[in-house]
Order: sequence, then structure tokens, then C-alpha cells
Amino acid sequence: MHKTLQVGDKATRRRTFTETDVHQFADLSGDHNPVHLDAEFAAGTQFKARIVHGMLVGSLFTGILGEDLPGSGSIYMTQNLNFKAPVYLDQEVIATVEITNIREGKGIVSLTTNVTDNTGKVLVQGEAVLFVPWLKS
Amino acid sequence: MHKTLQVGDKATRRRTFTETDVHQFADLSGDHNPVHLDAEFAAGTQFKARIVHGMLVGSLFTGILGEDLPGSGSIYMTQNLNFKAPVYLDQEVIATVEITNIREGKGIVSLTTNVTDNTGKVLVQGEAVLFVPWLKS
Repeated sequence: MHKTLQVGDKATRRRTFTETDVHQFADLSGDHNPVHLDAEFAAGTQFKARIVHGMLVGSLFTGILGEDLPGSGSIYMTQNLNFKAPVYLDQEVIATVEITNIREGKGIVSLTTNVTDNTGKVLVQGEAVLFVPWLKS
Repeated sequence: MHKTLQVGDKATRRRTFTETDVHQFADLSGDHNPVHLDAEFAAGTQFKARIVHGMLVGSLFTGILGEDLPGSGSIYMTQNLNFKAPVYLDQEVIATVEITNIREGKGIVSLTTNVTDNTGKVLVQGEAVLFVPWLKS
């Protein structure tokens, strides 16, 4: 049985991206920029240290949306991402999705999707829309 | 030397996502939905076969934007993704980015970011905005 969904429902995951994660994502995405991979190079940039690819951080949302809320069987329609501040390797971040709108008859669910650090500072801000087949009338 | 950028400049990459890619991305993102991983399950869905995670397809853009156009040293500000049609495992897709606007003094470059199949059908449609430090006055 699929869960009932309500505006205001939230789901959260915590994640710390490692050097191994960043190297794997560099190969998968084809983005081998040294700001992600080369500690010495990154030290000389505005970021002062290696940062995680923004799209890898944003990929936390597909896990939460696809497994937790709305959950398995929901279909990604759109994802908007605003990369507001860097995420560093070995830094714990918290990704949260929250339902903001449900169009029951259409099976369309909108959510805010944000990543913060452990002080609550927003690092990635976004919105997602999913088609949720079991809501469609 | 960084290249000169002009509205209308394009860059393209071709990519075929394999089962290994999809399994790696499932672990990186935490999205283990069976529509991506389980051929038998996927055969019973509306898609009829396993599909690549939308966010993995969208990750093609970080490679092109970060390495090719605008290229290394540019900083991702926003990425919007509209997942219009599924991408299947072992299906070749073509990702293209095209500069639509340049704000020279601010160093802000906007691009369309699209993924098509080899007939030109749009599978993922999006826009990206990057900060390009070497354009800033």
C-alpha cells in the first residue's frame, strides 16, 4: 500500500560525500574539474578546498523522492537546483524535501528540495515536481 | 587562456549509460528504485524496460559546462531540469548546451541544456546559469 500524502509532509536524509564518491561522480558525469579532485589546486581557488559537484549534492533528492517521499513508483517530472554555497568533501549535509502542493486528480505533487549544513545554512535550494500514479483519479 | 564566449556557442557530448553506471549512481544517490535496477520489474511498468535515473542523465551537463563550455573555472549557479521522456540503459543520447545570454560585466552566462535521442527527440530540457570569473569586469 502506498502512503497517504499531505501538504507539509517532509522527509530528510543526512549524507557526507567522500573523496571516493566525488571521484566516482567525476567519472559518471564526465566532470573532472580540479576544484573537485585536486586538493592543492582547490586550495588556490575562492573555495580554499575541494568541493563536491553541485549535481552530486542535488542527486540526494532523487534518493529521498524516489524511496521516501512520495516514494517508489513516483516519476520525476522536474527538478530545479540553485547552488547557493559550496559543499565540501567530508562535510555532513542534510537534504530535506517537503510537499507544498498536491493536485489529487492529476497525481501531481510539488515539493521544496533543500540541502543545508548542520547549522541550518541553505547550500542548495530547489523545487521538484513528481507524477504520483496512485493519486491519479 | 580562456576562450571567448558568444551567444550561440554550443558544445555537445554523446553518452550511453550502462548497467554499471546506473548501479554506481544508485549507490551514490541512494535511489535504488527497481525501475532502474530490476529488468523484470521494469518490464511491468509504463516504461517496459529499465530507465536511467533522470539526475544521472542531467549530470551530463556538469561535464559539458565544467569542461567544455564555458569550461574549467566556471561556477554552477542554477540548473533546471525537465524530464520529458525516459532514457533507457544502453541507449545513446546526445547532450547539448548553447549560450543564450552573457552579462559581461557580471560574468553571468545562461545556457539551454538539452538531451535528445539520435532522432532529435528531446528527452531532458533545461537551462543553466554559470558564473564565469574571467568575464567579470
